[in-house]
Amino acid sequence: MAKLTLETAKRLLSVAEQKSYQMGLSSNIAIVDDGAHLIAFLRMDNARIAGIEISKDKAWTSVSMQMPTANLSQAALPGSPSFGINTTNNGHIVILGGGIPLVSEGEIVGGIGISGGSSAQDIEIANAVVQAFEWLNKN
Amino acid sequence: MAKLTLETAKRLLSVAEQKSYQMGLSSNIAIVDDGAHLIAFLRMDNARIAGIEISKDKAWTSVSMQMPTANLSQAALPGSPSFGINTTNNGHIVILGGGIPLVSEGEIVGGIGISGGSSAQDIEIANAVVQAFEWLNKN
Amino acid sequence: MAKLTLETAKRLLSVAEQKSYQMGLSSNIAIVDDGAHLIAFLRMDNARIAGIEISKDKAWTSVSMQMPTANLSQAALPGSPSFGINTTNNGHIVILGGGIPLVSEGEIVGGIGISGGSSAQDIEIANAVVQAFEWLNKN
Amino acid sequence: MAKLTLETAKRLLSVAEQKSYQMGLSSNIAIVDDGAHLIAFLRMDNARIAGIEISKDKAWTSVSMQMPTANLSQAALPGSPSFGINTTNNGHIVILGGGIPLVSEGEIVGGIGISGGSSAQDIEIANAVVQAFEWLNKN
Repeated sequence: MAKLTLETAKRLLSVAEQKSYQMGLSSNIAIVDDGAHLIAFLRMDNARIAGIEISKDKAWTSVSMQMPTANLSQAALPGSPSFGINTTNNGHIVILGGGIPLVSEGEIVGGIGISGGSSAQDIEIANAVVQAFEWLNKN
Repeated sequence: MAKLTLETAKRLLSVAEQKSYQMGLSSNIAIVDDGAHLIAFLRMDNARIAGIEISKDKAWTSVSMQMPTANLSQAALPGSPSFGINTTNNGHIVILGGGIPLVSEGEIVGGIGISGGSSAQDIEIANAVVQAFEWLNKN
Repeated sequence: MAKLTLETAKRLLSVAEQKSYQMGLSSNIAIVDDGAHLIAFLRMDNARIAGIEISKDKAWTSVSMQMPTANLSQAALPGSPSFGINTTNNGHIVILGGGIPLVSEGEIVGGIGISGGSSAQDIEIANAVVQAFEWLNKN
Repeated sequence: MAKLTLETAKRLLSVAEQKSYQMGLSSNIAIVDDGAHLIAFLRMDNARIAGIEISKDKAWTSVSMQMPTANLSQAALPGSPSFGINTTNNGHIVILGGGIPLVSEGEIVGGIGISGGSSAQDIEIANAVVQAFEWLNKN
């Protein structure tokens, strides 16, 4: 399996930062490897301090749960099948959108987590990163 | 950016204590700096022990999330955009009203957190502190 | 048993603050009740952020262990009877000097914790608080 | 007080990465702000996973304790004045060298933490970052 390199992680950070900037947002941006361990992180000037842990844990959750964190937003509702999931793993599971696995040749090689705007905005930025990652993989 | 001094924090504690006393309440009162670190705290006689952490985490949340904690009460409801936010950051995010940032010249320089009464009462006390802070800043 | 009141706690905070100031130090000062729960806290301008938890945990330890924290400095040395004590209780036990129980009529009614200078300096400030407390009790 | 910007933090990360590369090391590199909160982080390919937390906590410690972490290595020895300091603050205090405060105009504006080589090597890399920071401040 190909490993996510720091070089690639830096390019993805840059994509997320530029996308945030274009949207008028100050984001926390985290990238983890296939073991859900942090590779690279940045907090844009004036971004929320609370977003440090949230972005890291979104990235962590996307790899650890093998799905986008947005999938959990519905599933964790009271009465839904995964109600309560977000209090497991010492609270590291985040059910807010904005964490997405990075997939290469069918394998999860890492994850991206964004925190700074609304969940919808965080998802939009994370998607831009995923697209950039797929483009890099093809080129 | 101006730093919130202990001298100012003490005056704000005093405002919160007197307001609580007038309302017949025993409050936990916490003031944090711009890094969300505790500057000053007091627990009025007979105030709830659980309120120690709640008041500190309300103040922490107001700075870390850059908004009053009351804004999160609705947003964190099941089905709302921030559902699940209160289990992030090791549970330090509080979604009960009563935590408000202290703003000086457009910058968040600290935060106040109150816990002792109902959320509505805690908010009323926190608002009294914010008004006193704004008055101090002008005089 | 007499309860430690907020009124008394404030006077003790003030003693510690003035003593620190005279010694040219910026201290974190914490006072807890007989349940080892925080009553009042202040961080002097420019005091170390790490001292917030250390001062609180010194006060907590003095009540929870029913002894000055300085007693543990020797006892927790490798080969001594309490070696390892400071990793119990989720690390809340502090073995640095500067935490002392407050005793009234033979009962521990609370504790003081100081963090800002060397352990010797922190102990000196804590002792000044204990003396002030004993004086208050007699008058 | 001047704030440490992301732009500066990126340049410092780059200095640390290049210095590590020249020394044949794979480092974890963390930069925090004046509130000891993470601004930017990177883990070089093949760097130790344990170093993620160590580098962050070295940076955190340097700001929270207002001193290089190397100062604590001796002070925390059994029988020395700060024995036991490293189990306070939930174990976030690191007494290994490689964390150094970043000082601008006499104020601590942030900190750097390095973990990847021996403590001596981590200190050498952190020192290179401090020198670069001072150079940037003058130019």
